Amino acid sequence: MAKRLVVVGGVAGGASAAAKAKRVNPNLQVDVFEKGGYVSYGACGLPYYIGGTVEKKEKLIIRTPKQFEGQGINVHLKSEVKGIDVDKGEISVLHSPEGKKEVYPFDSLVIATGAVPVKPSIPGVGLKGVYTLRHFSHGVDIRNDLEAGEVKKVVILGGGFIGCEVAEAFRNWELEVFMVKESQKVLRDFDDVVSRVAKEVLEGHGVTILTGCHVDSLIGRDRVEAVVVDGERLKADLVVISKGIRPNVELAVQAGIALGPHGGIATNERVETNIPGIFAAGDCAETLHFLTGEPYYKPLGTTANKLGRVAGTNAAGGDAVFKGVLGTTVIRIFQTGLAKTGFTEAELEGRGIPYETSTIVARDRAHYYPGGGRFTVKLNWERETGKLLGGSMVGPGPSVLRIDALAVALYSGLTVEDLARQDFAYSPPFSPVWDPLLVAANRALRD
Amino acid sequence: MAKRLVVVGGVAGGASAAAKAKRVNPNLQVDVFEKGGYVSYGACGLPYYIGGTVEKKEKLIIRTPKQFEGQGINVHLKSEVKGIDVDKGEISVLHSPEGKKEVYPFDSLVIATGAVPVKPSIPGVGLKGVYTLRHFSHGVDIRNDLEAGEVKKVVILGGGFIGCEVAEAFRNWELEVFMVKESQKVLRDFDDVVSRVAKEVLEGHGVTILTGCHVDSLIGRDRVEAVVVDGERLKADLVVISKGIRPNVELAVQAGIALGPHGGIATNERVETNIPGIFAAGDCAETLHFLTGEPYYKPLGTTANKLGRVAGTNAAGGDAVFKGVLGTTVIRIFQTGLAKTGFTEAELEGRGIPYETSTIVARDRAHYYPGGGRFTVKLNWERETGKLLGGSMVGPGPSVLRIDALAVALYSGLTVEDLARQDFAYSPPFSPVWDPLLVAANRALRD
Repeated sequence: MAKRLVVVGGVAGGASAAAKAKRVNPNLQVDVFEKGGYVSYGACGLPYYIGGTVEKKEKLIIRTPKQFEGQGINVHLKSEVKGIDVDKGEISVLHSPEGKKEVYPFDSLVIATGAVPVKPSIPGVGLKGVYTLRHFSHGVDIRNDLEAGEVKKVVILGGGFIGCEVAEAFRNWELEVFMVKESQKVLRDFDDVVSRVAKEVLEGHGVTILTGCHVDSLIGRDRVEAVVVDGERLKADLVVISKGIRPNVELAVQAGIALGPHGGIATNERVETNIPGIFAAGDCAETLHFLTGEPYYKPLGTTANKLGRVAGTNAAGGDAVFKGVLGTTVIRIFQTGLAKTGFTEAELEGRGIPYETSTIVARDRAHYYPGGGRFTVKLNWERETGKLLGGSMVGPGPSVLRIDALAVALYSGLTVEDLARQDFAYSPPFSPVWDPLLVAANRALRD
Repeated sequence: MAKRLVVVGGVAGGASAAAKAKRVNPNLQVDVFEKGGYVSYGACGLPYYIGGTVEKKEKLIIRTPKQFEGQGINVHLKSEVKGIDVDKGEISVLHSPEGKKEVYPFDSLVIATGAVPVKPSIPGVGLKGVYTLRHFSHGVDIRNDLEAGEVKKVVILGGGFIGCEVAEAFRNWELEVFMVKESQKVLRDFDDVVSRVAKEVLEGHGVTILTGCHVDSLIGRDRVEAVVVDGERLKADLVVISKGIRPNVELAVQAGIALGPHGGIATNERVETNIPGIFAAGDCAETLHFLTGEPYYKPLGTTANKLGRVAGTNAAGGDAVFKGVLGTTVIRIFQTGLAKTGFTEAELEGRGIPYETSTIVARDRAHYYPGGGRFTVKLNWERETGKLLGGSMVGPGPSVLRIDALAVALYSGLTVEDLARQDFAYSPPFSPVWDPLLVAANRALRD
């Protein structure tokens, strides 16, 4: 039984692991080391803080170090773990701002070092006013810039989750917003039908999207003044880079911990690495895909929290397993919800799985009930068996929570025929008498 | 193969059966006989027409007789089927207003006679201004009364679905609304936690609810003027009776068609009655409970439409089955959504099934995202196996569409442990990082 658990990183996966471990084994000494100045905050809320929907940054804090200490967990802020000695069972830590280096022993370890934003290696990325959005401080800095009132034009490089969410945030401030993309697709992890709507919605709300572009450089004296796109200057008072993230694995690699095929820390069902007693959870780690059991990298807050709990349980001497994820994802852009679960067409093609697909457009509520909107459902299923393998939805706001029903169907191995038999809820303000998912299933059956 | 299909009743089940049968077999002659003046309307929309949310009554029409005729279906309005001769394969019909009686042969028959509202046998129920809400004309009459401007006080007898929905509709008109109930519970088909909230919400919006009351009589000269409750006069300019409905089976009984234990027409998986070639769909018929296979009576629009399709397919010579319902139900009262699926505690007790239950209250979105509300989840599961048997939800508006995910879980035979493993969608405006359903599952596991 472990006596001292060390957790490296204190945001989603790390905070969950620490809290869970202490509940499982109250006698365990738990120490959390966090490089930054905050633990356990809602990183997914940063775009809403930037946009002003969340008024005060303090709102984003889930648990303060004090609350952790009330649970008997020691939190070390501004304490960067510089090395892990697997054989000795020790970590070396650099405490800021004093610059003091110390060594701490551990019996079990949870690595939750998160991810780092991908930054293109072009001139000018180091200028002031050029941001990624990953840490609490990034969100605070961007909002401070906006509040200072000097920002009129914003350029977003890339169109992933963060890119779309901050585009909305900046439009809240009535700024001129450009999104510059090398590829043609916004939200390219989604199926085309979703990407298309995402683009339409952004453009419909005044975001200018330039696709198929190459960014040459960012220019400015001290602070960014323009982005050079295919040789042309695009004025910019603020730039956000949204080119995705990569798992932060430096520490793990140095310690001899194995990585998986996607570059994240490899873990098994127990969320344990190749070294017994060392676990990895959150955006630094790979997990498993529920449908295939293959290693899968899906850095999302909800996955991080779940993996953290399992890691914490096992690190405290308990016994928990994690069967994998389906890659369920939802985003709201302005008032439109966009969601997916399971495999997209591109993912199925990449895996050589023979599939069928169909897409329907229905309404999200009874035709006579005012305020309704179009609701799109796309289903992907295995050609031979009819087994559901993935799906997408687009609709007004929370109506896309229907994706959860499809996620359960995928988990349960249901076929399109099973889906057509579901007894879904019906009430005119919430759904048509034939729920869009049933319409989609019937269409898939050519029925 | 059937040559002539007769459908008795043209609203939900009947309209679906006719349309589907014609698609399955375009050579089939399809005749729909409807007693009333409208076919294929959204009966579930009547409360919203009364309340003014749906402005024009024409909006509720799904398909006009003309549209049916465009599909090659003959629609006979104001044509009451008075008898079915099973041996001869004939029905006798009374056409209004001419009063002409005619006989029509059939090769296959779908009975979709719907249900009739339960009316208490107390003096005065026949007075003007005393309504049930079942047919299109009822909704029109009530709204006309409201528009005439003489109605100030309304009394609703009973607190089922219709009672709750019209209470809201009348409050939209800023009327004084009383709900008088013999029992203690509003929405008594739901688990207590839902009934309690329904009562609170109604009361919070100015509806006065009197429970444990006995209604002695309705009084008035020509039009209702008061309801006498436990000897006391309660002034009323309009009364709505919402005491539930009973299946309309007179015609079937006369024809020798067997009923089930709940008084509805007994049907099998093919939605066929005890007489081959005669089907019954919608509120007049019993169906099966998916979890137990037992006969079950759940008169809902969505069930009626589904059963109608299956009946239509089979009546046209096709081959379809219906595996039963879970009793999934959702209602919106003012801005609150209330939902259930599967068995309530009372239903489990009535069946002698050993079960466990737990209830949690979470938030419907990230704690920092403004405008969120409380979200209640109750789970009922089999004691020995952990298999999910039912659940309830209460939350802001469409957030309760999460009930569909639970419905799929029930269909798939998932346990509480399975539910805790679901990969649900997460985005701050739509859900907390731990979805309320996951919180409920973890609580159920005492985890």
